[in-house]
This record gives sequence, structure tokens and C-alpha cells, in this order.
Amino acid sequence: MKAAIVTIGDEILIGQIVDTNSAWMAENLSLLGLDIQEIRSIPDKREQIIKTLKEFNDRVDFVIISGGLGPTSDDITKASLNEYFEGNMHIDKEVLSNIQYLFNKRGMIVSENNRLQALIPDNCIVLRNPSGTAPGMWFEKENTIFVSLPGVPFEMKDIFMLDLLPRLRKRLNGSIIFHRTVMTHGLPESYLAAKIKEWEEALPANIKLAYLPRPGMVRLRLTAVGKVKSELEELLKVEIDKLQKIIPQYIFSLKDEALEEVVGRLLKERGKTLSTAESCTGGMIASLVTSVPGSSDYFKGSIVAYDNEIKKAELGVQESVLLSEGAVSEKVVRQMAEGIRKKFNVDYGIGVSGIAGPSGGSSEKPVGTTWIAVSSAENTVSKMFLFGEHRGRNIDKASVTALNMLRVMILDI
Amino acid sequence: MKAAIVTIGDEILIGQIVDTNSAWMAENLSLLGLDIQEIRSIPDKREQIIKTLKEFNDRVDFVIISGGLGPTSDDITKASLNEYFEGNMHIDKEVLSNIQYLFNKRGMIVSENNRLQALIPDNCIVLRNPSGTAPGMWFEKENTIFVSLPGVPFEMKDIFMLDLLPRLRKRLNGSIIFHRTVMTHGLPESYLAAKIKEWEEALPANIKLAYLPRPGMVRLRLTAVGKVKSELEELLKVEIDKLQKIIPQYIFSLKDEALEEVVGRLLKERGKTLSTAESCTGGMIASLVTSVPGSSDYFKGSIVAYDNEIKKAELGVQESVLLSEGAVSEKVVRQMAEGIRKKFNVDYGIGVSGIAGPSGGSSEKPVGTTWIAVSSAENTVSKMFLFGEHRGRNIDKASVTALNMLRVMILDI
Repeated sequence: MKAAIVTIGDEILIGQIVDTNSAWMAENLSLLGLDIQEIRSIPDKREQIIKTLKEFNDRVDFVIISGGLGPTSDDITKASLNEYFEGNMHIDKEVLSNIQYLFNKRGMIVSENNRLQALIPDNCIVLRNPSGTAPGMWFEKENTIFVSLPGVPFEMKDIFMLDLLPRLRKRLNGSIIFHRTVMTHGLPESYLAAKIKEWEEALPANIKLAYLPRPGMVRLRLTAVGKVKSELEELLKVEIDKLQKIIPQYIFSLKDEALEEVVGRLLKERGKTLSTAESCTGGMIASLVTSVPGSSDYFKGSIVAYDNEIKKAELGVQESVLLSEGAVSEKVVRQMAEGIRKKFNVDYGIGVSGIAGPSGGSSEKPVGTTWIAVSSAENTVSKMFLFGEHRGRNIDKASVTALNMLRVMILDI
Repeated sequence: MKAAIVTIGDEILIGQIVDTNSAWMAENLSLLGLDIQEIRSIPDKREQIIKTLKEFNDRVDFVIISGGLGPTSDDITKASLNEYFEGNMHIDKEVLSNIQYLFNKRGMIVSENNRLQALIPDNCIVLRNPSGTAPGMWFEKENTIFVSLPGVPFEMKDIFMLDLLPRLRKRLNGSIIFHRTVMTHGLPESYLAAKIKEWEEALPANIKLAYLPRPGMVRLRLTAVGKVKSELEELLKVEIDKLQKIIPQYIFSLKDEALEEVVGRLLKERGKTLSTAESCTGGMIASLVTSVPGSSDYFKGSIVAYDNEIKKAELGVQESVLLSEGAVSEKVVRQMAEGIRKKFNVDYGIGVSGIAGPSGGSSEKPVGTTWIAVSSAENTVSKMFLFGEHRGRNIDKASVTALNMLRVMILDI
């Protein structure tokens, strides 16, 4: 099925936002086996929207559109769609009651602008939006399906997953596509690729491999195409088993999940608890850990010790060590990890101290230098890393790396 | 000058990478006053590249293309350009010596694949690439300029800034585009739109307004088009002055910056310090504050008190209050904010406790219920908020709201 992606919004065309919706939709439509011919971003202009719809009506079977469905006057996607598909606008009662529900829940009254969000062309299928006022819309014309979704990323994704995906699956037939994701940490993309080159080259012709790097990790996505689901599952299992023998130490999960989820599950299963003592990561590790629902079962709390006074007073870091070794040193992070573990009476403590940048580096300890320690009652492990020059990425990488060191300690591998 | 942006690469169409080049080029071309009509991403396919060049040749004055200039066989942009512009390929001596220089510097020998990077159509102007082997190319046909740049972001940006920008500036005259951004917090998009409706409707015809919502805030972007930069600046200033009189309490900045940057600047200017005591936000506020370079000047540290034992032992929250009012209550967050302020000896303390969800809610305190307090030596202010049902967004909104309450306290407004 040939497809096109259209994102609408002046803010994209002047570069004020990076259009991340396109990549997300492209990935998820590709996973369904759709063949994306083009991604196009256009401004909030009626003529250009209609011209684009016409062009893709002739060229592809499926068009997904995001953006321009807000309640404000610059959002004109809905009116343009209604014009192109020659519908009549009417108030959709279900959409209206969803809007009322969303506002009532917050003790707010539905404004006229928001009531108008329930005004929908009468010739589309409404796709339910559980998290916002603008519903998705499914139109068909001359064998092409057009789906319009809001531009707010979480609303777009919710509608896509809850309502669009099942409908789209029904329309697709023939080939089955099956995916598995392998999460790796500790090797940059090019090194990983070199390590698994032979395995990759020997993959069966109907399996495709994609490298999807994120700060501090690389996701490997295997996609198999065929006719029988059980065969594809088996085929992927065999290949992943081989991969596990080649790079066991770099794989932290065989499904698409974050390290904080893996670590959370391990702690929960074992009835163990965690606290963190963070300097350069500034609370990011705690924030990642607590982003997981139910984390209060195993996470007790943290001390962000940006100031050395706090490292001493709260974590028991020795003044003499700070003076002789500096705050970014092995001894300090070990004392931080051990200090927080004892103070908060938990099973595992993490301590991190580094130079996130852009300033604060020296020739001896350049920006990116980071010490990380994890501590249990039995053992404290510490390592030094040299990340890069970018503050945000250094914080991300240090956080992910600390969580992986904890994972290794819990599993004793 | 009408412009279009084209990015080329199969990896974009399957969502394997987010196309950040487009937004960067769009922003930098907009700043020059170019009017971007469309951004288009297409695969590495000869026919589609040539079709796209033809179409934009008719529609716009300037086309910028990135991607598909690498040395591997899937990169076919250069051959397609040569075909479309009917040139002849020849080895460009300057490009070849640049390639040799880059390889020699690394002690490597130029491979045949890389030597072929110097094979350039003879009817283009070569744009020098200081950081890679593929040069940029400037073609002209029927009054349209076409510029092709590599897809590697830093190479694209280097060529753009060093060689393309000066050439482009020479060619430009006529309309100028000018932007201003106003950051607001505290009103959802639709309420904000209702409040500033009259002002918006009375805007001069050459000013456009866009609403750009983010969790907990809405950015307002004003775009003015005209001939004289100083006139546009003045026009926008007048309108923003009017807006400030209508919604003063909701505006936190008159430039495109985050609340943590505003708060950081305010603290730094006044020589004041901050610490946070976080329950439901789990370290997110500390993480935002420390994402700003130089935050160690005013941020001392935090206690993430997920567990009630830590609220009591570290922050001095009274057991009797926890029992009678619950952890999500006004008294608790006030004690948290005051407790961290005194314990860490800082000027301002923030305390947050809420039910982030998805579980933990009750009819009396549903998921999303959040108490926030900010405290100084003079005063402690506390407020309750009812955010939504989505854990991640509740954490984001609580964090942003807490930072804004601190901003209001510092400015005493």
C-alpha cells in the first residue's frame, strides 16, 4: 500500500519546531508494511492543503495528515478537508460529550471555541481522541484513505494506537509483518555494526535490520515479512538467539523498553529498594526511575548534591577527599553511593559526579569526565567515563549508564 | 523569495531518523526573509528526485536539498542533479585536494569511492565543505536557484554558514520577515485565545499570530512581513506592549526560552539560591533547573522524598500531619518547602506532592491532584492543582507550574 505523510503548520515551515510526528508516523506505518513515498510539510494555507490532497489522491492509497486541528483561527485543516471531501459540518454528539467530559473533569466550562471542536464533516469516520478535544477523521475518496490527526504529539499517538491502527490492520491483507526489538547499551552504533557484521550479512532475505540509536543506547529492530505468523516468530527467535551469543554483555532487553523499566522490574521482583545521590545528573536518574508507574514500590528517594556542602553534610563525603581528589573522583562517588544507601536504608545506592559542561573542564578532567558508583551491602563498583562536550547528552548518557551498572550489579553478571 | 526544502534519504521515509536538517534550514532561511512554501522528504529514487526538481523549478525561486551525496551506491542525488541540469561530470581539482587533505590529516589513504566524491557536474558552483568529502553545489535554471548539500548535519551547517549564506545574502532584496515570541503559562490554548481574541482580530494585516502549546505553557509567535526591518520591529513591539497589558500575569518571557532559564536568570541576578523537595515530580524540577549551564551558581541541591519516612526524617514533615492530612496536602508541601529551605540554607525552597497516577487516586483526591508550595524567609505560598490522568504530563505540568510560582514569588508580582 503506497502512503504519504503530510504535516501542516506554519511553525514547521519557519523551523520553529522540529517535525517529530513525521518520523513517528513513518516508523509505525512502515512497521505495518506501508510504503511511504513522501513526507511533506505545508503551511496553514487552504489552497495548498487542497492541492496536496488532490495530488496524493492520484498517487497513493493512504494519506496521513497531522496538524491544524486546534481551536484557534490559524487552524484551518478541518475546513479545508470538509471543502475537499464536499461534506457538511455538523455537531458530533459523541465528540461534544467527550469535550464536555474532559472539561468537567477539570472543573472547567466548555468555551465556545472548544464547543466548535465538535463540529465535524458528516462524511468521515470519527476517530476517538481520549486525551484532547480534536478528534481524528477518516475520509475515503476514489480508493484513497485520508486520515487527519491533531498535531499535538501525544494526542496524535493516542488516536493512532487506539483507533486508527485496528482499522488500518483490517484493511491490510496479504503479507504479515513481524517485529522484534533488541535493546543494547555500551557500544556506539558503528562499533556495534562492526561486531555483528557477519551475523547481519547472514540474515535470511526476509529479515531486515535497523539500527535506532538513542543517547547511551542503540535499539536493534528486526523486521520479518512473510505469510505465517508462527514461522516469522520462530525465524526471529533463532536469529535473536544467535545475536545473544555474540554480544550478551551489551543486550539489556529483548523488548522495546527503557533501562529504567528493566531496572524497576528487577528491583520489584526481588523486593529490593533504590536511592540515588546525584551531582552532575541533577536529579535526572531519579526522574527516569520515577517516570515508571509503580516506582514507589522500590524507589525511596534521592539527594541531589550539587553543592559540595551537601555532599559532605548529607552523604558523608569526607572534606579531605574532596580537597585531595576533587568532587569528580572515584572516592567521592563511592562515598556518595554508600552514603545514600545507608542514610535512606535501601538495598542499592547510586552515586554520580561529573563535569557536564559547557564550562568546568580542565586538561586533566575535560568536560564529559564522569564517575559513577553503584553500591550494595556486599559490594561497591565504580567506573570512570569520558562522554562528550554537550551538556544535555552528557547528563542523559551518565543517567543511562548508571542504570545499566545497577542492572549488572543486580543480575550479578 | 519563495523557497522549498527537500531532504533525500530512505532512512527518513521509514522513520529511522528524525529529519532535523529541515527545521534548521527552515529557521535559517526564514531569518533571511525567505518564504518557505513546503518541506518535502523523498526517498533515494532517481525519478522522484527529478520530478521534484521539475515541480519546484516551476513553483519557487530557491530550492535547498540535503542528503544523498555520500560515497555509497544508494546515494544518487548528484547523478540525478547532473541529469536534470544536463551537465557533464568532471573531477574538480580543488574538491579532490580537499578530500586528500582530510584523509592525510587522519593518516589515511583516499579510497576510490572517496576519490569519486570529487566528480562534480561542470555547470554548478562548488560550495566548499571544510568538514567532509562531499561539497555543496549551486545550480541555476530558469530563474530558480538549486543548492544541494550533504545530509550529515554538521557538514550541511558548515557549508550553509561558510559559503552559502554570503552568496544568498547578495542575491536577496525585497520582503523581510521578522518574528517575536511571547511565552505564556497558566492558560490552556483555548482560554488564552478567548482572552486575546479582540487583540488578535485587530492585528495589522501583515502580522500573523500562531499558538504553539507545550506541556504547561503556550508560546505565541508573531510574524511580521514588510520591507523595512526597523518598521517591523517597531510594529511588533507596539502589539506586544498591548498584549502585555491584557494578560500580564500569564507572560513569563518575551523571548523563546524555558521557565527554568527565566528562573535561573532571576536567581543569578539577585544572588539568590534554590533547592527543591520533590515527591511526585521525582527530581524533574531539579533536573530542569540543572539542565541550564551555570546553574551551580544558584542551585544547591534537592531531596527527592518519595517515601514518607524521608519526608519526615529529612524535611521535618510532621508524622501527625501526614496521618491527618495525607502526603498530598497543603500542610505537607508547606513543611517540605520550608524544610528544604532551612536544611540546605537557601533563599527559596520548592515543595511538591501529588498523585501522578495512573493509580493512587481516590474520589476525594483523584489522579492529577497536586499541591505545590514555594517558600522564602518572608513568606510561603501554596496552591492546589488538578492536572490530568497521564503520569508523564502530570509530572511535566507540576514541574513547570512550580517554577512559575517561584518566578512570581521572586518578582513579587
